[in-house]
Amino acid sequence: MTRARNFNAGPAALPLAALERAQQELPDLQGTGMSVIEHSHRGKAYEAVHNDAIAKLRQLFGVPADYDVLFLQGGASQQFAVVPMNLLESGKSADYVLTGAWSQKAYKEAKTIGKVRVAGTTEKDSKFARIPKQSELELDANAAYVHITSNNTIFGTQWQQFPDVGKVPLIADMSSDIGWRPIDVSKFGLIYAGAQKNLGPSGLVVVFIQKQLVERGRKDIPVIFQYRTHSENNSLYNTPPTFSIYLLRNVLDILIEKGGLAAVEKHNRTKGELLYSAIDARPDMYRCPVDKDSRSLMNVVFTLPTAELEAEFLAGAQKQKMSGLKGHRSVGGIRVSIYNAAEMEWVETLVDYMKEFHKGS
Amino acid sequence: MTRARNFNAGPAALPLAALERAQQELPDLQGTGMSVIEHSHRGKAYEAVHNDAIAKLRQLFGVPADYDVLFLQGGASQQFAVVPMNLLESGKSADYVLTGAWSQKAYKEAKTIGKVRVAGTTEKDSKFARIPKQSELELDANAAYVHITSNNTIFGTQWQQFPDVGKVPLIADMSSDIGWRPIDVSKFGLIYAGAQKNLGPSGLVVVFIQKQLVERGRKDIPVIFQYRTHSENNSLYNTPPTFSIYLLRNVLDILIEKGGLAAVEKHNRTKGELLYSAIDARPDMYRCPVDKDSRSLMNVVFTLPTAELEAEFLAGAQKQKMSGLKGHRSVGGIRVSIYNAAEMEWVETLVDYMKEFHKGS
Repeated sequence: MTRARNFNAGPAALPLAALERAQQELPDLQGTGMSVIEHSHRGKAYEAVHNDAIAKLRQLFGVPADYDVLFLQGGASQQFAVVPMNLLESGKSADYVLTGAWSQKAYKEAKTIGKVRVAGTTEKDSKFARIPKQSELELDANAAYVHITSNNTIFGTQWQQFPDVGKVPLIADMSSDIGWRPIDVSKFGLIYAGAQKNLGPSGLVVVFIQKQLVERGRKDIPVIFQYRTHSENNSLYNTPPTFSIYLLRNVLDILIEKGGLAAVEKHNRTKGELLYSAIDARPDMYRCPVDKDSRSLMNVVFTLPTAELEAEFLAGAQKQKMSGLKGHRSVGGIRVSIYNAAEMEWVETLVDYMKEFHKGS
Repeated sequence: MTRARNFNAGPAALPLAALERAQQELPDLQGTGMSVIEHSHRGKAYEAVHNDAIAKLRQLFGVPADYDVLFLQGGASQQFAVVPMNLLESGKSADYVLTGAWSQKAYKEAKTIGKVRVAGTTEKDSKFARIPKQSELELDANAAYVHITSNNTIFGTQWQQFPDVGKVPLIADMSSDIGWRPIDVSKFGLIYAGAQKNLGPSGLVVVFIQKQLVERGRKDIPVIFQYRTHSENNSLYNTPPTFSIYLLRNVLDILIEKGGLAAVEKHNRTKGELLYSAIDARPDMYRCPVDKDSRSLMNVVFTLPTAELEAEFLAGAQKQKMSGLKGHRSVGGIRVSIYNAAEMEWVETLVDYMKEFHKGS
């Protein structure tokens, strides 16, 4: 097998060793004579995997004891609705900081449920090419919560420092950068993340939620959408996506083996610096529209002088088994997604190719 | 590998060939250099799998052209809420036929959303040991819909003939018996099924829905919960559970290879008759509490004279690699789940064991 240099924005590359372990165990989990997919979610073999995944998330992220770790379904897009359904109390409004298409979607969905405010946006002055500064945020001290998107896959921006929101719970959609570095979970009321970038397969959402927010959640919404239902049942109220949780566990094992999130961050910074340097070194060919202090270490976006050159660039990259480099259809250009599992060799190959392409043109 | 005789109620046994194909292709889908899990849901390789799965569902089930096939998340338990959110118009009520724990859950969840009625139940007279007759149903001719559960995993009952509900849309939770035999989809307004019994891994819900019900659905609920959102986007509005859909496709290929649902039904009937005969032949040892015309061909439940004998029976079965035979904790006894992928040899081994156990006691 020749492994592709996979720069997909998501679903994205996973650690090969995690996939190979899944491959080896697929029809027969640890001599049980059946696949993890065929095990009952109430049986011992699966339960061990389930609890192992929770324990390893707690360990890697230093999740405080007064937080629940939940496994949910429906993607981050479902959380756009489920967060306000639970936490947008009547008589209050929720603050949304808009930094791109995903936070706009979260905001619009919340609007169908209750009162929402825009507490900051960089759309008008810069078309989302930067993250707003603390001083630009207009926060409501009585808001039910403040919602942010930690990393913006389409515009290539990322919060370097999370905003100070006082006593209001901070809620973050971390789908596209969870686990790229250590974070202080205690600064958040709720973190949710679709697994399909840094953690595992699509179809699984990981949630860290402060227990007091679980308790505060509304009780007049369907039981399946209440965080308390999943909290009280260790995410086994109904059948969870068992294979996805199993593969998440395999990925967590790799992250731990690599030295934890501090080591992962170092690796990600090296990859990102290499790539941004290659862009900045040739301003006549490559241009990153993002402010330097807002640049994402997960999704690096840049443009070439013409659409023709971009097409030529993409075609040449494809020949060297580099895929997923086309920018999002709404913005065009090039996008290089270098999540945790993107290998240094892939970035080095891309950077060499960028140099050659520049010389050749 | 010694394959277990897996009688789990769900997640349950899948066709070994479908798993082995997944194993072989896991790190490298068709020479693309990446796993199906790592492919973009917007890319050609995954899109081919996605559309293949839809086409094969249409083919196998004879889904009419005016129906959508949707892939959703959150399990059948989420559909308990999503169905009334979309279809329980204000000013109307919905009819629920209660035949066990799952229909009760669907009914309770719908109650959080709108007006519901019990149109029939066999709880009081028989503790759900039978399916109500057509003459026992008290249907509201103006109901928004009638909801049934086609098969009851806990009580071992199954609708042999679906009820006549006139012009009111019939909605069925078929999670535990979808694909066990051919059905006339046009008799239903909506069919939903968690995949984890007959179709694939947990984390995926398959929906067949009449297009006019999609259109009739409410527009004042969150976008993510509207059937129209997923209908308009070919179930690619947000990232679907790609691996689960891939594995579903593998399972569908096996069902087609075996001759389609008519052949599957024949196989299932042979297994069921063998097992029920073994129970009925030894009434001093085995007793099935279910009325003969309501017996499930998917979940066969029976009791032994004492709890001690049941424990002994289970322990002996485990030694012969038969697992998943313990009845649901709410009712006790023995439960044998013989979904599509349960092999004839497994049932034969169980029946031989039942004979020996009877002689030995």
